[in-house]
Amino acid sequence: MTAFQTLKELNDACASLPAGDEAAAKAAAARQDVLTKPQGSLGRLEEIAIHMARWQGRATPKLEKVEVIVFAGSHGVTRRGVSAYPAEVTAQMVANFAAGGAAINQLARAAKAELKVIPLDIDRPTADFTEAPAMDDADFLSAVSAGHDAVARNADLLCLGEMGIGNTTASAAVAAALFGGTGTEWVGRGTGVDVAGMKRKAEVVDMALAFHGERLRDPLAALARVGGRELAAIFGATLAARQNGIPVILDGFVSTAAAAPLAKAAKGGLDHALAGHVSAEAGHKRLLSHLDMEPLLALGMRLGEGSGACLAVNLVRSALECHAGMASFAEAGVSAKEA
Amino acid sequence: MTAFQTLKELNDACASLPAGDEAAAKAAAARQDVLTKPQGSLGRLEEIAIHMARWQGRATPKLEKVEVIVFAGSHGVTRRGVSAYPAEVTAQMVANFAAGGAAINQLARAAKAELKVIPLDIDRPTADFTEAPAMDDADFLSAVSAGHDAVARNADLLCLGEMGIGNTTASAAVAAALFGGTGTEWVGRGTGVDVAGMKRKAEVVDMALAFHGERLRDPLAALARVGGRELAAIFGATLAARQNGIPVILDGFVSTAAAAPLAKAAKGGLDHALAGHVSAEAGHKRLLSHLDMEPLLALGMRLGEGSGACLAVNLVRSALECHAGMASFAEAGVSAKEA
Repeated sequence: MTAFQTLKELNDACASLPAGDEAAAKAAAARQDVLTKPQGSLGRLEEIAIHMARWQGRATPKLEKVEVIVFAGSHGVTRRGVSAYPAEVTAQMVANFAAGGAAINQLARAAKAELKVIPLDIDRPTADFTEAPAMDDADFLSAVSAGHDAVARNADLLCLGEMGIGNTTASAAVAAALFGGTGTEWVGRGTGVDVAGMKRKAEVVDMALAFHGERLRDPLAALARVGGRELAAIFGATLAARQNGIPVILDGFVSTAAAAPLAKAAKGGLDHALAGHVSAEAGHKRLLSHLDMEPLLALGMRLGEGSGACLAVNLVRSALECHAGMASFAEAGVSAKEA
Repeated sequence: MTAFQTLKELNDACASLPAGDEAAAKAAAARQDVLTKPQGSLGRLEEIAIHMARWQGRATPKLEKVEVIVFAGSHGVTRRGVSAYPAEVTAQMVANFAAGGAAINQLARAAKAELKVIPLDIDRPTADFTEAPAMDDADFLSAVSAGHDAVARNADLLCLGEMGIGNTTASAAVAAALFGGTGTEWVGRGTGVDVAGMKRKAEVVDMALAFHGERLRDPLAALARVGGRELAAIFGATLAARQNGIPVILDGFVSTAAAAPLAKAAKGGLDHALAGHVSAEAGHKRLLSHLDMEPLLALGMRLGEGSGACLAVNLVRSALECHAGMASFAEAGVSAKEA
């Protein structure tokens, strides 16, 4: 069954997101302050433990089931020469995921995470969004629902990645629709286009902004009109995670652009999500800044697939091992700080 | 037996460091370029794989035995009020390491690393280096040798951490001796001193610089005179790693200051080392910049113990899993970039 039959159902879900568990967060913070280390000296590892407590609703968060979902989609806009790779690479990479040969297969294993790959009608590209909505309402709701349904309700942490030749252009268009600016401000090299390719990408974004105009003011409409199926699915999965007490790690520019409409649709809508990394794709840093998110890693990566999110999992695991396993000053008989 | 009986033996070892294996590095770089991803899109993970190949001397580096060594030392200079914690915390934390209750115990487990803790005469503090050399030659050579001997010759990667109340002051003095500047430029909050404590730390460093004067120009003499036993041991371990084809991950300010004399004593002396992170301790960023090292992580940590180095291990593991496990474009039947 489809999670969302109508846009109203989806809008209603966005308007009634559960809050974090402040009691669990407070208990976690209090525990951090008595562990055998100077207060605050584990830096962002302490923040991560508290974040996980708040959004799992447990003072001692667990990390038994980590899920990585990679959604794949095909983009009509590829006919405008926005990628360094031919459109058929999307399907070829899905086959590579299935065979275990892609980066994300290795990274998921190293993160002790379960990998799911979900292709979304990749033999049927979305419309070229410079001259039509990428998806109509039914197609959009179907992709959002596929993402929503894909999330295991008992996951302890969810990483969201994607594959789709052409999707950094779609993401630039979504980001521009949500936060303003022109194509030039949001496009980047993607898989490795040259300067002329960058110019084409910027023009395509500007054409899309002009074509759809005011109708992009609604964040869900922006995602449907200039996004793509894998972006819509990431949005749906981010929403499902929030509804089920599952913290999220976003990946790069595409993953972040896909989830961003939730922050626009609801105040604090992405509070349950961490930014796994900041990618080398030019618009990502700008987008994270608009979302007030501080990335955990900055390793110059620009691959997508969920690669940066997956790398951050072991930081979360380390943070939670410290949180649960360290002795307190009292337990260890270590002298406290001098007055 | 002691690895180094005389300063001449130690100086000779520093003057004859083995070079990296450029053939292995070149083969690793060539492999990275045919894996199923846009070239360069794994960013620093690609650099890490090539670094490990160069310094392990294997085109496909392995990571079966990861060693974390924490050296602990006691500092006479603590009597000058340079720490927020009493000097006895060094021994208490060594007991906490043995009982498994410290951060590094949890982090080593999460990194699948073996943890060794090596206390160096912690019931016998070094001399107060504002009025005498912290260590005489015999004491210094003994600590360097202890570090050198501690390294398992079959390790695939070595993380170097420390514990020693007062040692951020010693590290600031070593850094100032090696790279110039006054106490104020190199001291930080350490375990959490207040502004008055920072001022005392800076004064102590300046007193040491004035007392030892020109004798600090020799990098090994600087380490002996204003360092500490755990710093000398980290120096010895870093040297042993280089001699045995073992890449190193340095931790924070203390770990980096301890290894830094090797870069001064020999050109490229730290080329086999990665900076695991940049800590919140003020001088660390400055020190890494002098050493031309780009840290892998920046998480606002300031704990020491090898914590930041240990966190970086899973990045290395992930990099090597990608390097060894990914399919090439030809193997996966994925189309190459368009011309």
